[in-house]
Amino acid sequence: MINIAICGATGYTGYEIIKILLRHPKADIRVLTAKLDKPAKISEEFPELKGKIDLVCEELVVNHILKKKIDLVFLALPHRISMEYASRFINKGKMVIDLSADFRLKDVKEYERYYGQKHIYKDYLAQSVYGLPELYKDSIKRTRFIANPGCYPTGSILAVAPLLAKKRAAKDTIIFDAKSGTTGAGRKAVLGLIFGEVAENLKAYKVGTHQHAPEITQELSNLAGKKIDILFTPHLVPIRRGILTTAYVSLNKKSDLSSLLRCYKSFYQNAPFVKIYDEGLLPQVHDIVNTNYCGIGIALSSDKKKAIVVSVIDNLLKGASGQAVQNMNIACGFPETMGLE
Amino acid sequence: MINIAICGATGYTGYEIIKILLRHPKADIRVLTAKLDKPAKISEEFPELKGKIDLVCEELVVNHILKKKIDLVFLALPHRISMEYASRFINKGKMVIDLSADFRLKDVKEYERYYGQKHIYKDYLAQSVYGLPELYKDSIKRTRFIANPGCYPTGSILAVAPLLAKKRAAKDTIIFDAKSGTTGAGRKAVLGLIFGEVAENLKAYKVGTHQHAPEITQELSNLAGKKIDILFTPHLVPIRRGILTTAYVSLNKKSDLSSLLRCYKSFYQNAPFVKIYDEGLLPQVHDIVNTNYCGIGIALSSDKKKAIVVSVIDNLLKGASGQAVQNMNIACGFPETMGLE
Amino acid sequence: MINIAICGATGYTGYEIIKILLRHPKADIRVLTAKLDKPAKISEEFPELKGKIDLVCEELVVNHILKKKIDLVFLALPHRISMEYASRFINKGKMVIDLSADFRLKDVKEYERYYGQKHIYKDYLAQSVYGLPELYKDSIKRTRFIANPGCYPTGSILAVAPLLAKKRAAKDTIIFDAKSGTTGAGRKAVLGLIFGEVAENLKAYKVGTHQHAPEITQELSNLAGKKIDILFTPHLVPIRRGILTTAYVSLNKKSDLSSLLRCYKSFYQNAPFVKIYDEGLLPQVHDIVNTNYCGIGIALSSDKKKAIVVSVIDNLLKGASGQAVQNMNIACGFPETMGLE
Amino acid sequence: MINIAICGATGYTGYEIIKILLRHPKADIRVLTAKLDKPAKISEEFPELKGKIDLVCEELVVNHILKKKIDLVFLALPHRISMEYASRFINKGKMVIDLSADFRLKDVKEYERYYGQKHIYKDYLAQSVYGLPELYKDSIKRTRFIANPGCYPTGSILAVAPLLAKKRAAKDTIIFDAKSGTTGAGRKAVLGLIFGEVAENLKAYKVGTHQHAPEITQELSNLAGKKIDILFTPHLVPIRRGILTTAYVSLNKKSDLSSLLRCYKSFYQNAPFVKIYDEGLLPQVHDIVNTNYCGIGIALSSDKKKAIVVSVIDNLLKGASGQAVQNMNIACGFPETMGLE
Repeated sequence: MINIAICGATGYTGYEIIKILLRHPKADIRVLTAKLDKPAKISEEFPELKGKIDLVCEELVVNHILKKKIDLVFLALPHRISMEYASRFINKGKMVIDLSADFRLKDVKEYERYYGQKHIYKDYLAQSVYGLPELYKDSIKRTRFIANPGCYPTGSILAVAPLLAKKRAAKDTIIFDAKSGTTGAGRKAVLGLIFGEVAENLKAYKVGTHQHAPEITQELSNLAGKKIDILFTPHLVPIRRGILTTAYVSLNKKSDLSSLLRCYKSFYQNAPFVKIYDEGLLPQVHDIVNTNYCGIGIALSSDKKKAIVVSVIDNLLKGASGQAVQNMNIACGFPETMGLE
Repeated sequence: MINIAICGATGYTGYEIIKILLRHPKADIRVLTAKLDKPAKISEEFPELKGKIDLVCEELVVNHILKKKIDLVFLALPHRISMEYASRFINKGKMVIDLSADFRLKDVKEYERYYGQKHIYKDYLAQSVYGLPELYKDSIKRTRFIANPGCYPTGSILAVAPLLAKKRAAKDTIIFDAKSGTTGAGRKAVLGLIFGEVAENLKAYKVGTHQHAPEITQELSNLAGKKIDILFTPHLVPIRRGILTTAYVSLNKKSDLSSLLRCYKSFYQNAPFVKIYDEGLLPQVHDIVNTNYCGIGIALSSDKKKAIVVSVIDNLLKGASGQAVQNMNIACGFPETMGLE
Repeated sequence: MINIAICGATGYTGYEIIKILLRHPKADIRVLTAKLDKPAKISEEFPELKGKIDLVCEELVVNHILKKKIDLVFLALPHRISMEYASRFINKGKMVIDLSADFRLKDVKEYERYYGQKHIYKDYLAQSVYGLPELYKDSIKRTRFIANPGCYPTGSILAVAPLLAKKRAAKDTIIFDAKSGTTGAGRKAVLGLIFGEVAENLKAYKVGTHQHAPEITQELSNLAGKKIDILFTPHLVPIRRGILTTAYVSLNKKSDLSSLLRCYKSFYQNAPFVKIYDEGLLPQVHDIVNTNYCGIGIALSSDKKKAIVVSVIDNLLKGASGQAVQNMNIACGFPETMGLE
Repeated sequence: MINIAICGATGYTGYEIIKILLRHPKADIRVLTAKLDKPAKISEEFPELKGKIDLVCEELVVNHILKKKIDLVFLALPHRISMEYASRFINKGKMVIDLSADFRLKDVKEYERYYGQKHIYKDYLAQSVYGLPELYKDSIKRTRFIANPGCYPTGSILAVAPLLAKKRAAKDTIIFDAKSGTTGAGRKAVLGLIFGEVAENLKAYKVGTHQHAPEITQELSNLAGKKIDILFTPHLVPIRRGILTTAYVSLNKKSDLSSLLRCYKSFYQNAPFVKIYDEGLLPQVHDIVNTNYCGIGIALSSDKKKAIVVSVIDNLLKGASGQAVQNMNIACGFPETMGLE
């Protein structure tokens, strides 16, 4: 049994971590923090939690939290703010799973360019592991500091990782056309997120400048052993949860679909949350939403030299909180799927 | 040709007034004001206006506006703020159509109770006319100061006005169960309005305390010549535009539907924007949205002593901006439907 | 451990029963039936079931099913078709939970009037129990034939049952204004249900003629010990799941809210799936969707003589499949909440 | 003044043609046809047309229609059915605008492959003009038989036409990732289109096999003067109207954005319904929906060798009925924008 603190409990990702851990046999939520006008029970913010968890959301004060004999802290905080708290909990020997972007990019210059701020805790970068279990399960087992991946990168990287790792991709630019539900932007009052602006609308945004692009590039380049060039175009669509990514990859030779599917199944043979779809089938958001799975399906161009790969995740689960718990399970030695099925 | 200023041009109602007046042969928009971080063209805020109107949204400064030879000002401002500007433009002899609630309630105590603030311009109340053309067309013709009705009151009052005016209602409480799209709450960054909170959700809110209730009571009581008791329950539903109101009225005697429909058609014979539905039909939001109509249909209880009246309006048109232009047409001597069909 | 057949497995309610029973420690799904063009695995129809249940959906042939040593049959079939199969399984001594309306109305004339067809198995009516556990738990424990309530009646009856049972309601007509998501109409290709017709629309339908009205009347009259008069107005709203019902009840005397809340809490003290909201709070669909709960909140008119009661259920869970499993649990002697939390 | 028949008046595209022509000063709708169980007024099917047009929808019988002195026929019929009627009206000297796909593909083998049926009126192909005014305005002026483009091809072709016509594209495959609202699939009862299946879902479909792909290839190849290779991936998103297409084009040399925008503005200088967005801006569905415009915005990859072009149309207007009326205007010698602004 491990004792848990969740910092940022009233955002969408904090809330999802709570819901998962309430079903988790090895986790005991001891502390919730949130920025509220006045202290309130979490069940006042989310009435469906009433009778299940009645902790009061407190202010984030590290010393108070440490007194509660915490083993592990989930940081569901905004970028920039997470940085400081991660370092402080690490210093105190706590296990930290950071859902922010602060320790995902190994190249500080990239971080500072895309997030527009200094990185003042770069010394901690070396300790952190990029928490994508399908790529780094062994490192995650041994770490106490996990930088949980972004939602878009999770869907994009998993969609093409086998092609790069197994040298099936040509050197052309890989295109990721991603469509995301609105909860990916967090639970906050922003004009561009209100129903009147989102419903019956579609838009591409931050084309060429989205902060998740360097994260995708970093991981694909690691997999390929060389710099990979990508185009990443995020779109906002009027659904609450889910990201569907359509990836376009040039193959290094004519391929048939069954061979590609075998390549994917082999690469993901130890990945309990990746579902490879059979020939002719592609994942839809409805198949995957509310689960921790990543569904992947493949189609081929008629000349068999380009793969169209469709991946689907729930941005709040495999794209954030579910993956965070999956990382906790691995790092703590629990079964990888515990609490997640 | 009249010269127009629209104050609050970047809200939903301001934007709708612009779109209507661009089609209106007698209106020339001369001034737009908005609270923006820096001055910007209205077409930067709403790209669909590009090439149609390129005015810059300026700060609301009365003297600046007066210099532009304005005849009529639409105030699409928040409650409380509207009050002051209305009085100042009235003082300068300008025609004012105020879309806020500041001059709708004749009883200042009701205003102060429901809006939680002092009314510091009560002297102007006597000059203002409640701008519901189906009830007050003659007064609107003669006034220069119109208090444009709220969206919920428009749908609720029109749904039952004939029954009260023609003494067909029993003295029981009239129930209004209203379902509104989200644009009724304005174009503003509020957590409760973001897509993730609204989509796939339904809620009743401000039950017994909504500020539109006294407006409905005031007008129904005027019609009946005695105090009318109501219950008004607003609900938020995940659509952008439209209010469907289901009214439950006890009749003072058994009635048949054809007689009720005749009563409605007679009462609304000079109301070009009220559509009474034939027996067996009820209005839906799709029938009415994007128009200035109010659709009304009636069903009877099996004992024929209670009417279930369904009304539908577009909250931004008949419930706000369309009605404002209808009022302008009447007050300026233009055809009532000009620019609205 | 009991062996289960689900007839009508590819509809929304059949699918939800499958998902619940996959988590249920005492249920073993042995048979699925569906009307398909050709036999197919359930996981082909619902890809998210892949790896969890791979049964092939077969045609509904009673003898085939009986061979599979079934203990209990869920009938998630259309009205009229259910009737025959219910009787045949009952005759063979199987426990039957019928989600159709065929055995809900004790008065065959009402059934024939509202469903437009003869009831040819009326002899079985006496054996069936109306499966609303909050009212009939004892009878459900002793029966082998349960008529599972409709979705609208569940939300409506639970909203006002305490007021009638405890003699707090005046004799006036009780009004139910109900707003339902689209899955209440089933998973079928109907023009009125396609996205283009439902999204951004609201409508009232079957006003005064909906087949769920007599079911509500029957149960409220039973509770009150006399004929209760109701008005029931269903509305279709663009959400997938959830029913929010706003009930308007005249009280037989001035009441305060705390007394009413005590009345509700007392009435539902043994009802694990009813949540009474504290003063000032009302349930929203987001609080309840994807659970088997019925959330109930109460507001009072300013004269304290009328209650506005808001209830929320998930139409596919407490309004159908969740309630069916709750009934199974009670009838089979399992804990009432098993598999449902 | 020309006399019009609309065949297929109760589908989404037929309905939109009616609404446009009611505002058109030179068009008189004389005949509506529809497949209905019994003859009905169009205003019974679409209550918002009441008082505006009260024609009865009749069966499609060519001789009956010819008696009504029709000049021009819009065929808003399913593929395969359109073919026969188009030929018969052409034979009688009527002008025909065919919204189906039957005469869009000049290569009959492509038609038969993608639409799975014989083309039995190929002799008429030579007479038909592909009705994309931005490419074929001169031919449209001289023809009496217009094959109105598909919705996806309109958005895709317009997005990249300047790059091909002005030889700015490299020879790599052009990728079109298109996201469409549901009305693109027509107004018909299909399980995959019901709200419960579409809302909160996203899916790619017919990847590599969609019937609009050869139409795009045909037109781009014509523009380029050589065979162009494309990948076209359509996606269904939960909006009613609108297609956003994200096109990825390799350029034949490093380019800057201003040069590309000049190229587009020059190519479309006589195209009143194409809006090129300024640098840094991209069209959203909200900008364009309910208009006949195609909005186009461009972004560049960081190496300036790949263009990401985003186009938006309303699938029912520029993607179907609006374009059909634009074609009518051109072919009849009316101002191109008449009735469309």
